[in-house]
Amino acid sequence: MNQQVAMEAPRSIRLNPSDNVAIVVNSGGLPAGTQMGDITLIDHVPQAHKVTLADIPEGGAITRYGEVIGYAIKALPRGSWVNELLLELPTPPELASLPLATKVPADLPALEGYTFEGYRNADGTVGTRNVLGISTSVHCVAGVVDHAVRIIKERLLPKYPNVDDVVGLNHLYGCGVAINAPEAVVPIRTLQNLARNPNFGGEILVVGLGCEKLRPETLMPELPSDLAMRNVLSLQDEGFTGFQAMIDGILAMAEERLEQLNRRTRETVPASELVVGLQCGGSDAFSGVTANPALGYAADLIVRAGGTVMFSEVTEVRDAVHLLTPRCADEETGRAMLREMKWYDDYLAQGRTDRSANPSPGNKKGGLSNIVEKALGSIAKSGSSKISQVLAPGERVTKKGLIFAATPASDFVCGTQQLASGMTLQVFTTGRGTPYGLAAAPVIKVATRTDLAKRWHDLMDFDAGPVATGEATIEEVGQQLFELILDVASGRKKPWSDVWGIHNALAVFNPAPVT
Amino acid sequence: MNQQVAMEAPRSIRLNPSDNVAIVVNSGGLPAGTQMGDITLIDHVPQAHKVTLADIPEGGAITRYGEVIGYAIKALPRGSWVNELLLELPTPPELASLPLATKVPADLPALEGYTFEGYRNADGTVGTRNVLGISTSVHCVAGVVDHAVRIIKERLLPKYPNVDDVVGLNHLYGCGVAINAPEAVVPIRTLQNLARNPNFGGEILVVGLGCEKLRPETLMPELPSDLAMRNVLSLQDEGFTGFQAMIDGILAMAEERLEQLNRRTRETVPASELVVGLQCGGSDAFSGVTANPALGYAADLIVRAGGTVMFSEVTEVRDAVHLLTPRCADEETGRAMLREMKWYDDYLAQGRTDRSANPSPGNKKGGLSNIVEKALGSIAKSGSSKISQVLAPGERVTKKGLIFAATPASDFVCGTQQLASGMTLQVFTTGRGTPYGLAAAPVIKVATRTDLAKRWHDLMDFDAGPVATGEATIEEVGQQLFELILDVASGRKKPWSDVWGIHNALAVFNPAPVT
Repeated sequence: MNQQVAMEAPRSIRLNPSDNVAIVVNSGGLPAGTQMGDITLIDHVPQAHKVTLADIPEGGAITRYGEVIGYAIKALPRGSWVNELLLELPTPPELASLPLATKVPADLPALEGYTFEGYRNADGTVGTRNVLGISTSVHCVAGVVDHAVRIIKERLLPKYPNVDDVVGLNHLYGCGVAINAPEAVVPIRTLQNLARNPNFGGEILVVGLGCEKLRPETLMPELPSDLAMRNVLSLQDEGFTGFQAMIDGILAMAEERLEQLNRRTRETVPASELVVGLQCGGSDAFSGVTANPALGYAADLIVRAGGTVMFSEVTEVRDAVHLLTPRCADEETGRAMLREMKWYDDYLAQGRTDRSANPSPGNKKGGLSNIVEKALGSIAKSGSSKISQVLAPGERVTKKGLIFAATPASDFVCGTQQLASGMTLQVFTTGRGTPYGLAAAPVIKVATRTDLAKRWHDLMDFDAGPVATGEATIEEVGQQLFELILDVASGRKKPWSDVWGIHNALAVFNPAPVT
Repeated sequence: MNQQVAMEAPRSIRLNPSDNVAIVVNSGGLPAGTQMGDITLIDHVPQAHKVTLADIPEGGAITRYGEVIGYAIKALPRGSWVNELLLELPTPPELASLPLATKVPADLPALEGYTFEGYRNADGTVGTRNVLGISTSVHCVAGVVDHAVRIIKERLLPKYPNVDDVVGLNHLYGCGVAINAPEAVVPIRTLQNLARNPNFGGEILVVGLGCEKLRPETLMPELPSDLAMRNVLSLQDEGFTGFQAMIDGILAMAEERLEQLNRRTRETVPASELVVGLQCGGSDAFSGVTANPALGYAADLIVRAGGTVMFSEVTEVRDAVHLLTPRCADEETGRAMLREMKWYDDYLAQGRTDRSANPSPGNKKGGLSNIVEKALGSIAKSGSSKISQVLAPGERVTKKGLIFAATPASDFVCGTQQLASGMTLQVFTTGRGTPYGLAAAPVIKVATRTDLAKRWHDLMDFDAGPVATGEATIEEVGQQLFELILDVASGRKKPWSDVWGIHNALAVFNPAPVT
């Protein structure tokens, strides 16, 4: 195996002509002594890790993506391995002085003729799945809801063939929480908007307990209280004589909604009805080279087709925010971006921590030295469009185009928050690999490297590795990914997480105390 | 129905001779005009709500449990209904000036001869169940673990008849969290100690991803790293070519542990091996009259038998802490109690909230006007023993007797934290009713009122209502509850939550930011 690696031609990628480091592509890394063009490697450089292309003095800037990702803590001669211990973190962009809407990208040419088969809803949104979502106002009911969902799947679902699935929207919020704390607005808004995700077709059923702090009707602020209560089943209602009666009650209300949902059928809609969420997790140095730029290209295609694309993950965007505020459509949007960054700075400071808690050990092993390098790779997902709206965590999207939906970077929290914002399909890029999936919306998992795509052949849905080997361009891979998005949105293709039924829990972002 | 209620003799309970309010017992409440002894009711007083026994002037103290629970915001003549809008909250006990270990209760007479059938572990602990617990270092693996657990239950568990269950210990921690924040110690310690719960028999299996911030070996700090890694399966290990290989890997490691667990058999052990957690949720004004005092009596019996009893729920204890610090075994224990109260005061203040976020609307509907009244009823669970140890959230118990294990009051967070502290059976009192249950330990649910026990006949395990009607004394009901605890600990009786298999998720307390 080692011999085979040694015989492979040494390959590396420099992203920007001004970079003084490149990324080693060869799967076993490159041993010391390797001749890489006119550079002789001084150290063994693992795959996806950085090698210096010039002599860098102590304190000298290390440049990737054309941006400074850190300063050398000792002299690094040409051909050195640059790992996370050798870089000092640059100071983060000062929010107050950032330019807003100064480089708003011109609209790219409109893209006509792309469609998918979606479920059109009464409120104008379009879903990619036809799912009965059973909301909950408090975690206390989770066991009962899980039990009811099992029975609904067994007994009722087969009678309604147009309905794809039944999902219990269990979460840890609702009681034992500081519901009057200022930040409680975040989880409450998230739960309200989760219930309205387009994949649930406007059919709302809330199972509550009765004594919880989060009143079930709160989840439907758009309905008058009496109408809202028609969608609520409270386990403590005096009419329920025991557990079996509760289950029967849930089944009866579920069946009414299944009948409605069963009337929905897929119809051809323009690609402008897509609401795609973007995320990365378990990233490596290839994330910013292969998968994220290809996804950025696909994102541009969706925006050109008139659709909606959300990117998120505040802590991974923070160190590259100076590249985003100029792209905001107008100053107001730019200020909203700053507001979300500042909120998170304060939130981390209050917890006596900072952005250095990111990246993870796996990121570092994958060649990502620090949060600056990770951020630069992460925002490659956003493509090159202007940013048309900035959402606070859990707010529902109201514009088309490229949206920044502020969320934590935690995969499962980000997924939950994007669902609340109205995302109906997610694309998730990963370099290290994760079996991540969501029950409420399909997730396309994109591998940054061909080795991962091959090894996890029954978990990864798409391989962006050919970009690294030069077998395909970013544009070609991005176009393929765009077409896969349309196929999955149409139900023509099923991501692996749905084939196996492996899904993560909802993780509602609650920045307020539990009590 | 109303007529029937009207014909019932009016019944009320005054707990302490110095109280100027009593609790109405009659299930429909009592209408205005009712003659209750020599008092004529001025208002309709709902069941479990307070009625004034004397004229209380504006600003006058309202006294229950012999303690001031609030001050009247207007004059309340004898026979008035006292609801939550009529009380002003007293200031909480000043921590700095509280007496420590000044009234340490003398040991009650030892209780000999009580035993249960438990599973003795190599480390000296005794379990009440024989469960394979599959720990996880990060939520990313949850879908895979859930899938594996389903297959293990189907294919493997039937071959190991002495093993009761297989439980995936999924949680939302592990990555996307500020792992270096000072408060990260709480969730990390909790996960470490969860894996060691006596019901898991010392068999540890950790499924990790590979790139997460919480290294899987961290969960076993007592083992050297190489030994610890023998208990770890990381999905990103290069040996796993895809999902099916991961599942096969988990099954193989699970089977080794099932073989070990299958060798465990129940043996007769003294009741001193009990580690019982106490909790209340969905409380009403009867909680502090029937269920909690009866549970307090049972707690005293366990302590007299040499066993361990934990009570918890900092925010519900805070307003009665001046009654607890004198009961601490020594000043050091008293200071630990103050430390936990202060930590929570600070935590709530940081989130710009305070104790008034508790009680819940259901509590108020159930007659609990404010947190002071709730706290006084809540600590009745602790009985009358001295407090021998105070644990920070997630710390493992190391002493016998009555323990204060600091946790949030949130039912599912408290349950998770008590499991980490080594609790092997929980007793949960409820007035409003909740279907709460835990997968890792049996939960005995105690109704505060007979109506609830009857209505929720297949969810409530025990009825403390006869205390209110005078059909049984606190001592009699407490003794019955103690005997039920021994039956359930022995596996002779199964609580309803285990009959139905309805269990809440683990909710690990994480006071640090997510990232």
